[in-house]
Amino acid sequence: MPKSVDHEERRRHIAAALLRVTEREGMEAVSVRTVAAEAGCSVGAVQRYFRTKDEMLHFALVSVVESARRRLDGIRLGGPDGMTFADALRAAILQSLPLDPARLGEARVWAAFYARAAVRPDFAEVIAELHKEALGNLDQALRYARSTGELDLEQDPEALARLLLAIIDGLMWAILLDPAAAASNGAAVPQLAALDAALGLITR
Amino acid sequence: MPKSVDHEERRRHIAAALLRVTEREGMEAVSVRTVAAEAGCSVGAVQRYFRTKDEMLHFALVSVVESARRRLDGIRLGGPDGMTFADALRAAILQSLPLDPARLGEARVWAAFYARAAVRPDFAEVIAELHKEALGNLDQALRYARSTGELDLEQDPEALARLLLAIIDGLMWAILLDPAAAASNGAAVPQLAALDAALGLITR
Repeated sequence: MPKSVDHEERRRHIAAALLRVTEREGMEAVSVRTVAAEAGCSVGAVQRYFRTKDEMLHFALVSVVESARRRLDGIRLGGPDGMTFADALRAAILQSLPLDPARLGEARVWAAFYARAAVRPDFAEVIAELHKEALGNLDQALRYARSTGELDLEQDPEALARLLLAIIDGLMWAILLDPAAAASNGAAVPQLAALDAALGLITR
Repeated sequence: MPKSVDHEERRRHIAAALLRVTEREGMEAVSVRTVAAEAGCSVGAVQRYFRTKDEMLHFALVSVVESARRRLDGIRLGGPDGMTFADALRAAILQSLPLDPARLGEARVWAAFYARAAVRPDFAEVIAELHKEALGNLDQALRYARSTGELDLEQDPEALARLLLAIIDGLMWAILLDPAAAASNGAAVPQLAALDAALGLITR
């Protein structure tokens, strides 16, 4: 195996360990030492791939952003044929909420990055870029729905895109911070009444 | 001055230092050492009042919750006479968003607690309690609006209360993570289009 591939693989192995520590204990628990222990390697090995905690966090942020981007891509233009716009939008938004253990873990990592971005402009920039993309996708989907008559002409797609993004983020936190909802593993959670109310209002 | 009052005052002085450190650098930067430096006292002095970092954070959380509670109380039953329900609700929600430097600082602390609550059930419980209160207040306001005919009878106050709370939290993050919006100091920010769209849909 060429050395550069091996290097990339080891970097990913260490980044995965970092994500597990963040998911379990939050970003405060992340250090070269705790990540080395989680990855089953020496502190020196971690430092060969990431010189500082910040370098590790940046790498992890990029991998979480990729995963969020794949999900947000699903919002672009609704679901399978025959679904109404409201149903397709609902399905895509549900995909982005922490309603199973895997997405719950990711949302915990996401939460840690959000908090860091609140005090660190370099992290805020990465998230702002992703928010811009999500707004663009939502806006495009809403304009399409308006063109097919599934959304009133009087509605402003740009404002509604911002509203939907705020609802997605707000519900992520509402579910994440409610232990019963976070443990529901896909069962209906009361927080989703908010989503149904919003979609009912937007597409009525 | 009796010793117990002095004790309480010094505790508050140290907690205020903790909040300033959190606001500036996030919760990761909080330690007995950094808080002592910020408060201008010795590590031993901090430890006399808070034995651990967790004790400090809990005390700070309670003080931030008090401040949020005072603001949420304002949502209970709209504003001065003569205001429509939509205007009163809008004014109350604006009060809870980080649109000036003081509230921006508070939102940064809040963000740090949210992230911690995502991995710590004891912190999640405090926030769940506050969310429950906020939902109760919003529900009460919406039922009142329905009784005066300012809200359609077909609307479900409980679902709308959850929707408004998700929007408040989502917009807090959207403003906090957008450096331009966070620095706007009360000027109109594009994120508020989401709030206007939601209020327009709810009260149309």
